[in-house]
Amino acid sequence: MLNTNWEKVEEADGKSYLIKAFNFKNFIDAFAFMTKVALLAEKMNHHPDWANIYNKVVIKLSTHDEGYTVTAKDLALSEIIDQIKL
Amino acid sequence: MLNTNWEKVEEADGKSYLIKAFNFKNFIDAFAFMTKVALLAEKMNHHPDWANIYNKVVIKLSTHDEGYTVTAKDLALSEIIDQIKL
Amino acid sequence: MLNTNWEKVEEADGKSYLIKAFNFKNFIDAFAFMTKVALLAEKMNHHPDWANIYNKVVIKLSTHDEGYTVTAKDLALSEIIDQIKL
Amino acid sequence: MLNTNWEKVEEADGKSYLIKAFNFKNFIDAFAFMTKVALLAEKMNHHPDWANIYNKVVIKLSTHDEGYTVTAKDLALSEIIDQIKL
Repeated sequence: MLNTNWEKVEEADGKSYLIKAFNFKNFIDAFAFMTKVALLAEKMNHHPDWANIYNKVVIKLSTHDEGYTVTAKDLALSEIIDQIKL
Repeated sequence: MLNTNWEKVEEADGKSYLIKAFNFKNFIDAFAFMTKVALLAEKMNHHPDWANIYNKVVIKLSTHDEGYTVTAKDLALSEIIDQIKL
Repeated sequence: MLNTNWEKVEEADGKSYLIKAFNFKNFIDAFAFMTKVALLAEKMNHHPDWANIYNKVVIKLSTHDEGYTVTAKDLALSEIIDQIKL
Repeated sequence: MLNTNWEKVEEADGKSYLIKAFNFKNFIDAFAFMTKVALLAEKMNHHPDWANIYNKVVIKLSTHDEGYTVTAKDLALSEIIDQIKL
């Protein structure tokens, strides 16, 4: 099963990840979103590979312990992130 | 002028403050709101006197340098906080 | 057992809580500390009753589901908060 | 003048940036550091291009309004970030 709100990228070396870009009004809104994701990720003990510039946040999810592939943990985190309203 | 979305409390000793209570769905939403307020307050160099329990945040605003009275700084911060959407 | 770094307050109505005050250099340091506590508290699903003014943070811990008394959950959270270095 | 604690990268197309990697004990410490940087950056109205995975934070600084080159704003922010203690 896939969360079709996220793009799944499969690399040549067998690694894969889910990726999604988020846009906000400004840095404050972007960082408040990141704070929510941080609280959820720490609670699940599964953390994103993410980047931010001003109002943009790009999140990549994969499971490092499973050879950097997409697992149920990544799907679960992607769905929880999608439920965040800002 | 007053921001009538906030209650103005006047104490016997001449001190006064603006106060408003905010309710959220859960702790994560409450703390993300606090993060936005923190970013705005630090930027204005004017900080709230605030408390949180789980999904509730109570904010009191007064200007300590002006004898703990309500000044234009408090009105400005109250209006900016009111514009935060979550 | 008690965490003697925190004061235990017992109220007339049988309620009790642990309380401790923390002082920082400025608001930024105080709020970064609060962010760490928030991440830990959400992970434990046990949240503080806390207040902040500028560089000061006061944390009260009790278990609402257990009649607002001090339980093992509060001791655990108090010890984890004591381990936070800033 | 340069902040020699940061590497200056000059790209072929004339763009340049300062870059520095930071390592922490865990995600909580990394995110608390990011919260401090966020508060400082918003206050200066100059924001980083940054990425995080678990306990690692990589920060790139350049001034987008000045053709993505390193300006006094980037030096100022780099020096303020270096003063953050965790």
